Amino acid sequence: MKKEIVETKYYTFNNFSLTSGKVLQKVTVAYETYGKLNEGKNNAVLITHAFTGDAHCAGYHEGDEKPGWWHAMVGKGKAFDTDKYFVIASNVLGGCAGTTGPEEINPDTGVSYGTDFPAVTISDMVKLQKKLVNFLGITKLFCVAGGSMGGMQVLQWAMDYPELIYCAVPIAATLKSTPQQIAFNEVGRQAIMSDVRWSHGHYYGGDEPDRGLAVARMLGHITYMSDYSMQKKFPIEQDKEKKAEFNFNADFEVEQYLRYRGSSFVKRFDANSYLYLSKAIDHFDVQKDEFLSEEKNADIKFLVISFESDWLYPPYQSENIVKFLKMKNQEVTYCNIHSTYGHDAFLLEVKDETHLIKNFLNKLHNEVFGGEKSEE
Amino acid sequence: MKKEIVETKYYTFNNFSLTSGKVLQKVTVAYETYGKLNEGKNNAVLITHAFTGDAHCAGYHEGDEKPGWWHAMVGKGKAFDTDKYFVIASNVLGGCAGTTGPEEINPDTGVSYGTDFPAVTISDMVKLQKKLVNFLGITKLFCVAGGSMGGMQVLQWAMDYPELIYCAVPIAATLKSTPQQIAFNEVGRQAIMSDVRWSHGHYYGGDEPDRGLAVARMLGHITYMSDYSMQKKFPIEQDKEKKAEFNFNADFEVEQYLRYRGSSFVKRFDANSYLYLSKAIDHFDVQKDEFLSEEKNADIKFLVISFESDWLYPPYQSENIVKFLKMKNQEVTYCNIHSTYGHDAFLLEVKDETHLIKNFLNKLHNEVFGGEKSEE
Repeated sequence: MKKEIVETKYYTFNNFSLTSGKVLQKVTVAYETYGKLNEGKNNAVLITHAFTGDAHCAGYHEGDEKPGWWHAMVGKGKAFDTDKYFVIASNVLGGCAGTTGPEEINPDTGVSYGTDFPAVTISDMVKLQKKLVNFLGITKLFCVAGGSMGGMQVLQWAMDYPELIYCAVPIAATLKSTPQQIAFNEVGRQAIMSDVRWSHGHYYGGDEPDRGLAVARMLGHITYMSDYSMQKKFPIEQDKEKKAEFNFNADFEVEQYLRYRGSSFVKRFDANSYLYLSKAIDHFDVQKDEFLSEEKNADIKFLVISFESDWLYPPYQSENIVKFLKMKNQEVTYCNIHSTYGHDAFLLEVKDETHLIKNFLNKLHNEVFGGEKSEE
Repeated sequence: MKKEIVETKYYTFNNFSLTSGKVLQKVTVAYETYGKLNEGKNNAVLITHAFTGDAHCAGYHEGDEKPGWWHAMVGKGKAFDTDKYFVIASNVLGGCAGTTGPEEINPDTGVSYGTDFPAVTISDMVKLQKKLVNFLGITKLFCVAGGSMGGMQVLQWAMDYPELIYCAVPIAATLKSTPQQIAFNEVGRQAIMSDVRWSHGHYYGGDEPDRGLAVARMLGHITYMSDYSMQKKFPIEQDKEKKAEFNFNADFEVEQYLRYRGSSFVKRFDANSYLYLSKAIDHFDVQKDEFLSEEKNADIKFLVISFESDWLYPPYQSENIVKFLKMKNQEVTYCNIHSTYGHDAFLLEVKDETHLIKNFLNKLHNEVFGGEKSEE
C-alpha cells in the first residue's frame, strides 16, 4: 500500500485576543488536513492533540518512517474515515510544533518571548482552532474528538461554541484538573525551572534546560503507563551479582527506557512550551454553570470514553463528565474500555476505540446527511 | 503529661563487610531505645524506618516541639507498649541521620565518601541492625516491625536471620520492587543527578544539589498520598481572574505545599543518601527460594498490613507477601486496612494499626512469656 504523504500547512494572521485580555500581534497555526471537505462544508472533524502532540495526526511526512500520532485512527476506512470526513488537526497555541508559542520572536523585542509569552488557556487553544476552521471555510464542525488534553479541548469546544459542533468525543479526560494531576505537572515544571540552563525562560540561542525537561518527561511516562503494563514491558530479572555492586547507571531496563525517552523528547519539545501547556491543563475547568446552560439550547451528541487502568485520568473522572452532561440534558454514550495500558490506552486501544467511534459517527452521519447520500 | 525526653545514642565499630564484598573500615550506627530490656533479654522489639526516616522513632528530643516519627505507635500503653517491650530504633546504613553514609569521611582520602561510598542493600542495613542488637546484649528479637522500606527490612530479617525473631510485622511493603516503583525512584535520582550542584556526588563543603533533591521529594510526596486525600487536603477553588493571568508561581495550594515540603526536606536530608537508599529499595527482592526454606526450620509469626488507597505499595503486593509466606508454611495474619490516606496511611491510621498490632503481640507475648508473668 502506498504511503499517504501529507504536509503541514500554516495559517498566519494578526491580533489574537486571549482570555487574559492580552493580544498576540501575530499568530501562526500549524495544521494538516486529510480527506475532502464536501460541498455542504459540514463533514469536518477536528482532532485535538494531547499535551505533547502536534498537527501531524495521520499519514506520512515525505521521507518519514513513522506516521502521525493517531494514524491508526484517521484514514480510509478507519475510525475517522477520510472517505467520509474532512479531518483537521492543528498544533495548539503555546506549543512548539509550528504554532505560535514561547519560542516565537516577540515583535516588541526582536528575540524569543520565553516566559514573556502570555498565559494561554485551553479556551485560547480552542479559540485559535475556531479561527482556523473558519479560515478553511467551515462554520459548523461535524465532530471534535481527542484524548487527554485533547479531550479537554473537546469539552471546551462544547462550553465555548456549543452551537458550532454536532458531536463530541472526549477521551480519557476530566471536567477539571485534580490536585494530583496538578501536582504531577508541578513536579515536571519544577524539574525544568530548577535546571540552571532554564535561565528564567530566556535560554533560546544558548544552552537549553534539557536535563530538567528530560526529568519532566520521564515522570510523564510513568503516569501514562500502568503498574501492570510496566511489569509486562520491563520484567525484572534476577541478577545477584549485579545487585550487590550496583552504581547509578541504569541497572534496570525501565530506567534505561525512561532515560532514552527523556533524552529523545528534548530534541522535539521546548521546555517553556512544557510549562505553558501544563499550566493550561492545570487551570482547565468546565465544571461550571455556564457549561451548556439552558439558554444556549445546545444539542450536542457526546461519546465519552475512558480506560480501566488509566490512573492519571481515571474512569471516575469520565463518569463525572457523563453525570454532568446528563444533568445538562445532553445525549451521552459512555464506554469504559477494558485495557491494561493506563492513560496511553487512548493511543493504543485502536480496535475498541474504532468500533465505538465508527458506530457513533455513522449513526449521526445518517441523521445529519441522510443515509449514504452525502458520501461523495 | 510530662514529655518523655529521649536521646539518640551512637555505637561505633570497625570493619563491616557488605553484600558487595567491600568493607567499611569504621561504622557508626545512630539508635534510640524506649522501655526496659527484661532479665531474659527477650522482650526487644526492633522498629525499622522508611526511606527518609531516622532513629528518632518516639519521645521528644530535649527542646523539640515535635516527637519522633512513630510516637503515636511506640510508648506506654501504645501498640508497641514500652511497659512490656524494649523498643529499639536505628538509622539505616547509608542514611544521613547519624549512621554512616555517603557524607561520612572516607579514611582513605580524608574527605566525604560521596559516590565513592559502597553500594548498600537492605540486607546490609539489616546486618548492621543485628550488630547493634547484639551489642545491646540481645540474641533473639521478640519482634521486628516497620512500614514501607521498614517493611522490607522486616522481610529481610526473616530471610537473613529467621532463627533470631519470634514475630514480624511488615506494613505497606512488597516482596520485591516493581518497575513502577523503580521508575519513580529513578526520576527522583535523575532530578538530583541533573542538578549541576550535584557534581557527581562530591558536593560536600560547597553548594549542594538542593533544587534537584527538592524535586525528588515533591514527587515522593505525591506517591505517598492518594488522589482522594489530595482532593480533601487541597480543595481547588474557582478563581477566574487568577486563571486568565497565571504565571509560574504556585497558583494552587497543592503546588505551594509541595514546594514547601521540598524545600524543608533538603535541610534535613542528604542528596547522596537519597540515591543510595532508593537504589537499595529498587534492588530489594526476597521472592526467592532461599527465603524461609525448609532446612531453616523457621517458625516466625507474621502480621502483614496494607492500606486500601496505597497505590505506591498496593494491597496486592501485601497479598503476594501473604501467599508467599503461606507457601513457606508460615503462620500469617493479614489485614488490609480501609484508609483514604494512600501510602502515608502507615503513619496515620494509628487506631486500626494499634488494635491489630496490640492484639497480635499480646497473644504471642502470652505464648512466649506465659501470661502476664513476664511483665516486670
